[in-house]
Amino acid sequence: MKIALVQLNYVIGDIEGNTAKILAEIAKAKDAKTDIAVFSELAICGYPPKDLLDYPSFIERCETGLAIICEATEGIAVLVGGPAWTGLQKGKKLYNSAFFFADKKLLRRIDKTLLPTYDIFDEYRYFQPNEVFECVEYMGELIAVTICEDLWNLDDEKLYKVTPMDELYGQKPSVMINLSGSPYSYNHVEKRRNRMQLNAKTYGLPLVYVNQVGGNTDILFDGGSMFINRMGEIVEECEFYKEDFKIIEWDSAKIYEDNHQEYYDYDIGLIHDALVMGVRDYFNKVGFKNAVLGSSGGIDSAVVHALAAEALGAENVKAITMPSKYSSTGSVDDAKKLAKNLGSPFSNISIKDVFDSFNETLAEEFTGTEPNVTEENLQARARGIMLMAYSNKFGNMVLNTSNKSESAVGYSTLYGDMCGGLSVIGDLYKEQVYELARFINRYGEVIPYEIINKEPSAELRPDQKDSDSLPPYAILDKILYLYIEERKGWKEIVAMKEEGLDEALVRKIIRMVDHNEYKRFQASPTLRISHKAFGFGRSMPIVARYNH
Amino acid sequence: MKIALVQLNYVIGDIEGNTAKILAEIAKAKDAKTDIAVFSELAICGYPPKDLLDYPSFIERCETGLAIICEATEGIAVLVGGPAWTGLQKGKKLYNSAFFFADKKLLRRIDKTLLPTYDIFDEYRYFQPNEVFECVEYMGELIAVTICEDLWNLDDEKLYKVTPMDELYGQKPSVMINLSGSPYSYNHVEKRRNRMQLNAKTYGLPLVYVNQVGGNTDILFDGGSMFINRMGEIVEECEFYKEDFKIIEWDSAKIYEDNHQEYYDYDIGLIHDALVMGVRDYFNKVGFKNAVLGSSGGIDSAVVHALAAEALGAENVKAITMPSKYSSTGSVDDAKKLAKNLGSPFSNISIKDVFDSFNETLAEEFTGTEPNVTEENLQARARGIMLMAYSNKFGNMVLNTSNKSESAVGYSTLYGDMCGGLSVIGDLYKEQVYELARFINRYGEVIPYEIINKEPSAELRPDQKDSDSLPPYAILDKILYLYIEERKGWKEIVAMKEEGLDEALVRKIIRMVDHNEYKRFQASPTLRISHKAFGFGRSMPIVARYNH
Repeated sequence: MKIALVQLNYVIGDIEGNTAKILAEIAKAKDAKTDIAVFSELAICGYPPKDLLDYPSFIERCETGLAIICEATEGIAVLVGGPAWTGLQKGKKLYNSAFFFADKKLLRRIDKTLLPTYDIFDEYRYFQPNEVFECVEYMGELIAVTICEDLWNLDDEKLYKVTPMDELYGQKPSVMINLSGSPYSYNHVEKRRNRMQLNAKTYGLPLVYVNQVGGNTDILFDGGSMFINRMGEIVEECEFYKEDFKIIEWDSAKIYEDNHQEYYDYDIGLIHDALVMGVRDYFNKVGFKNAVLGSSGGIDSAVVHALAAEALGAENVKAITMPSKYSSTGSVDDAKKLAKNLGSPFSNISIKDVFDSFNETLAEEFTGTEPNVTEENLQARARGIMLMAYSNKFGNMVLNTSNKSESAVGYSTLYGDMCGGLSVIGDLYKEQVYELARFINRYGEVIPYEIINKEPSAELRPDQKDSDSLPPYAILDKILYLYIEERKGWKEIVAMKEEGLDEALVRKIIRMVDHNEYKRFQASPTLRISHKAFGFGRSMPIVARYNH
Repeated sequence: MKIALVQLNYVIGDIEGNTAKILAEIAKAKDAKTDIAVFSELAICGYPPKDLLDYPSFIERCETGLAIICEATEGIAVLVGGPAWTGLQKGKKLYNSAFFFADKKLLRRIDKTLLPTYDIFDEYRYFQPNEVFECVEYMGELIAVTICEDLWNLDDEKLYKVTPMDELYGQKPSVMINLSGSPYSYNHVEKRRNRMQLNAKTYGLPLVYVNQVGGNTDILFDGGSMFINRMGEIVEECEFYKEDFKIIEWDSAKIYEDNHQEYYDYDIGLIHDALVMGVRDYFNKVGFKNAVLGSSGGIDSAVVHALAAEALGAENVKAITMPSKYSSTGSVDDAKKLAKNLGSPFSNISIKDVFDSFNETLAEEFTGTEPNVTEENLQARARGIMLMAYSNKFGNMVLNTSNKSESAVGYSTLYGDMCGGLSVIGDLYKEQVYELARFINRYGEVIPYEIINKEPSAELRPDQKDSDSLPPYAILDKILYLYIEERKGWKEIVAMKEEGLDEALVRKIIRMVDHNEYKRFQASPTLRISHKAFGFGRSMPIVARYNH
């Protein structure tokens, strides 16, 4: 039996476009004499469609798309994901389904059982879980079809009471097919592989696993669709971050060899590729060609500039340095050198006059007060306005250049350096930003070494250094990781003696994180690369007392 | 049997404060010889605690608080909501529970069965649903205890497969108690009453229903706890928008009279009170005393100013008018008159010099371009920066003054008039803002009639009127309501012949709504008064093609 793994990049809500895309691949699969072409979860509408699912007119459009696909299945079978009305009197109105079309007929609809509702997932918001388990018979084979999370309930401590494959296994299927919508995070690549391999081994069955690829706003899908043999070896693995089409000749008698790619967890190269794809897809899918960013001469904007240049072409990324009287000459030179290295257009626009004008305008109102954080924020906001004005005038999207360490502790200015349409490195801690800078320079200097080697500073007052108000980033990032990603309270963190973290410092940092929830609420979408990014995946109350 | 309905305003995450509050009410209940004191859902931690529930240290603190409460129940029973570990190997780790303490012992823990996961609710993200149904025996009475949503599954088309009271009814309880966390929206007051009355009638049982009160960021809880007799009449109803403590003498033989308050759905007075409470609680709970807002002389800022003055005291609300060369003298005068009517401090700070300075600074970069929306946005953003500078300098929180019609179509400037810590009227369509203005003036002029009567204008270019680019608000608001609240696609809206809406217009407006998802993503929290507010309750993809 020939099975095609069709790994595509869908646009959410673009039913007509996605349908056309799927039809083209079906034609390709037919040419290659494929028996079954497998697409990913909710392929018809793109994943995740979110509250578009609340619109009956949207479901109707999906049904139309699926009907067109069904018509195209003469002489081939197609497995494709889409929403389906349950038609039941009780429960949510929709299923998250896989449609098994064959020869212009719906052979079977398989509904998803396990609905992830944690972190960035909220499927229980929309869908009713399936409770009926039946394999599909096709060409004399009994196929166990499941959808994404359905194959993940194999832990010792299970998140769900039911494990779909346990139910299907009794019917003696000969192969498993899983339609997936599994996003990237830097500890997920091996985990996903291992989980799927464990399924193959547990049930002694080969597994066809098809994921989608592409950036959908903040969520990055890495692809990596697989064919795993019954011993749990990865025989075929689709590309990461690219559309792919692989045909596997499945023969229950055949011995396959392990053939997976050399990608592992926490690979800075994978993070790099994820971010480049994220920028590219965000721009492509909203129809922007050009970006603009504030290039301060610091490490954060340098890394964002380099990533954007790779994603969009350096000539399409405008860098603007906006010195104030506190900016060092070095910073301007470094930003300029970076733009030159990359080949990007560059401008130097001083914010001095604007800053002075604000101060003069506010002088009467501010009589009797001393300069404080107000004037620092004014500079950051004047820069933000310049970038937005440039964006309005020339149609470049502003890229945000904040990192996760800053966002976490609120070391950033609302409507100032927090502005932008997309945050590129907002899910990378400062130490990871340095790691990425070194990776970008792996073949030689792209980001000037001066930028990598200088001490971090916001340059908002004379001789300011990040280390004036923050601990060294190695320590800060450790505390943040334990609190945010690992969800440990301050007592637990301090109790980890091997970390040697000071109680007062840990509590102070955690208070800063909690206190700045209100700022992050207004942050731009942030490309997600960790398993706990700010944004939808970390939904904290704003008005609250924490102290935990 | 004497039952106390204890309707309190909790601070999310403030376990220690909430515990102390609950203890004080228990003492009061003891003094009044109460048999059972009933608190609301998740009272120990405040509702909704969101991802704080992901922290084991947070659950531990809740357990400590509950243990202290248990110790205080000598001679009394207490029903109080809190999270509880399931202790199960499978499923989510927590229950949303009601703890029935009596005489310093846990008599029974009742776990929530129906977990709302739609709109602003995401309980399936955290909790495992209960599957065991048993009434609690206390003082010779059999009590059916349920939690909020557990009593809502009475529709013809049920959202859940199980209806907890159907399960409990067979055990022949003599009274129902429901611990609730039910937020206000303008079509929810009667709906909630009717639903609870329907429960009493359906099961022929009296119902004690205890809700919380208070604003938790965007979500406003209105209270209105009730005692309903077995005929479905409301015998007692607690206050709206205020903490309350009512003791009911429940006697199964007694005849009670209907005694509910004269509050109905879509009551502009209730909307008014909700918003005032929302502003007051937001400031109280984050520890701010003073607000600042941009007072343009238009209706939106006028209504926000009046509401804030009522919530915080007029003297604590600083109004700043920031004319540009396009501002009419009338606008400045009207803003000034409003501040005088209310008794608020007022400043006039021209943005002319700042605006000129931006234009001069950008002149070289913008060589050869024509003035366009860039310059309009520059004005809005210069004003935003002024307000933020004032906020930084004096510690006043900036109030956002956008309305829902504007947010919907993106008739607002990111980092300009969209700035602020809290959006006060962002869930009111423009027509509702006028309605609220007339309500505020119900005893005489507070908001100058000139402001109410003038034609809406952003005053960002000469002689600009909202009606230049938007249809009349009566029509715009109707389309928006059908699309946003009613989730109808353009075809359905156009097909509603009685509405007489033009297809081209409907499609244009819907495109504007869809296209501006990216702006709303960065909006401030918005006090929620409708059943479909922007924010968490309407979770739409940013990068998407809609066309539905």
